[in-house]
Amino acid sequence: MSDGDAATAFAPGHVTGFFSVSRADDPMRAGSRGAGVTLSAGVTVRVTPSDDTEVRLNGDRIDVESATRVLGALDATATVEAETNLPLGAGFGVSGAMALGTAFAANAAFARGRSENDLVSLAHAAEVEAGTGLGDVVAQARGGVPIRVEPGAPGHGVLDGVPAAGRIEYVSFGGLSTSEVIGGDTEALSAAGERALVDLRERPTLPHFFELAREFSRDAELLDGEVAAAVEAVTESGGEAAMAMLGRTAFALGTGLTEAGYDPEVCEIHAAGATLR
Amino acid sequence: MSDGDAATAFAPGHVTGFFSVSRADDPMRAGSRGAGVTLSAGVTVRVTPSDDTEVRLNGDRIDVESATRVLGALDATATVEAETNLPLGAGFGVSGAMALGTAFAANAAFARGRSENDLVSLAHAAEVEAGTGLGDVVAQARGGVPIRVEPGAPGHGVLDGVPAAGRIEYVSFGGLSTSEVIGGDTEALSAAGERALVDLRERPTLPHFFELAREFSRDAELLDGEVAAAVEAVTESGGEAAMAMLGRTAFALGTGLTEAGYDPEVCEIHAAGATLR
Repeated sequence: MSDGDAATAFAPGHVTGFFSVSRADDPMRAGSRGAGVTLSAGVTVRVTPSDDTEVRLNGDRIDVESATRVLGALDATATVEAETNLPLGAGFGVSGAMALGTAFAANAAFARGRSENDLVSLAHAAEVEAGTGLGDVVAQARGGVPIRVEPGAPGHGVLDGVPAAGRIEYVSFGGLSTSEVIGGDTEALSAAGERALVDLRERPTLPHFFELAREFSRDAELLDGEVAAAVEAVTESGGEAAMAMLGRTAFALGTGLTEAGYDPEVCEIHAAGATLR
Repeated sequence: MSDGDAATAFAPGHVTGFFSVSRADDPMRAGSRGAGVTLSAGVTVRVTPSDDTEVRLNGDRIDVESATRVLGALDATATVEAETNLPLGAGFGVSGAMALGTAFAANAAFARGRSENDLVSLAHAAEVEAGTGLGDVVAQARGGVPIRVEPGAPGHGVLDGVPAAGRIEYVSFGGLSTSEVIGGDTEALSAAGERALVDLRERPTLPHFFELAREFSRDAELLDGEVAAAVEAVTESGGEAAMAMLGRTAFALGTGLTEAGYDPEVCEIHAAGATLR
């Protein structure tokens, strides 16, 4: 949990299947509705008090505004060392995981005595204010297959979940800019996301989630050529797959991508949310 | 998750440190406020559709009303096979774990298509109506170190958490009847529990939780001789321990009981809530 001054936390990755944007002046009320899958592949964050704040990802210095905002909110000057196998900007919620992991680890390293809901709220607000995500943090704090019924931080947002466990495969062909998509015109996208949410809540099963996520990526006109080909190859061989929002990434249930001839990364649905290590 | 018709789920054990009783005619609104620790030691529940409902715990037939009520609510006739290392009636929330595990496994085995919040609500109501517990189910659905801020099922209750990870030890000297305690006069107990909750929310750390739990067991006059001796032995050797509500069980942080000369069972704080296996 904490050795001397340093502390380590883990936050799961999160791929969104569909979503709608909920804007609000208060970042605690802003966010997104939708649904996704949290992954055992995630981000491990070690926070060590130091004279200057510095953030490293897999050993390289990097500017992650969501993480530095969290440190500021906790009045913490520290070295943040994050390690992950997930690609950046490809729809896995790495910035959200870094915000959340930094919040949990810094709270322990600096003995700030905040509750988990407080830490999730801090990380959510930091991510919204940085413009890098809307719904990943609350999903990554929950684990499983989160349904974001109402947007926002704890106390505002409402979560449910699809009961599920098992293997997830993914292939990533590159990044998409979350801030460009959620900063642009999101009316059609949000209408499609709201429809998918109503449908999923009527029958919250994993195959139904994948079906609705595929429909959403088409309706929202976000489906990318290589991703579309991978998703189609999986469904044609009888599996379930969809595109990760927002990245050029296809993810599949079980051995879907392997059976369709791809060489995917493999992980599991992560039952737990972010936690101290 | 499910092989043919059968499905398996796991629910963590849960030891409550302090609580207050919230009665209500609607079982979804009834429950308890308080705080506790969920444990990697828990209950694995396998549900197989069959012609007659039968519940087994570690191979022996047993009548667990919370579990049979859950099956009824899901219109499921099944064999429920539960396995656990935890003692019964000793404050580990075994009946709550059986209700929750049965809900998750039966939903999968019978393809009932309920959401996780629905399943937690079913299990919570079954446990309240059976009179065997008030707050275990919502805590066991969350994982970690749950703070029950407001009582009741999802949609009514509010949860927070103490950020924590690590080893938990326990020794059990026998049972206490939950239904006798929560069915009796709980005014003084609830007043002590409400005070502890206010204090914990001001400084939600694990050592503070243990301190408040010790105070509660004294104030509520539930502290048992052998349990009191074990708790005192741990604190005198510099560790943190408390009594599990409601059972003749002492639980400790890290190696507290070992260092005090006991031969305890060992587990971990469980990061996740109940889940399909």
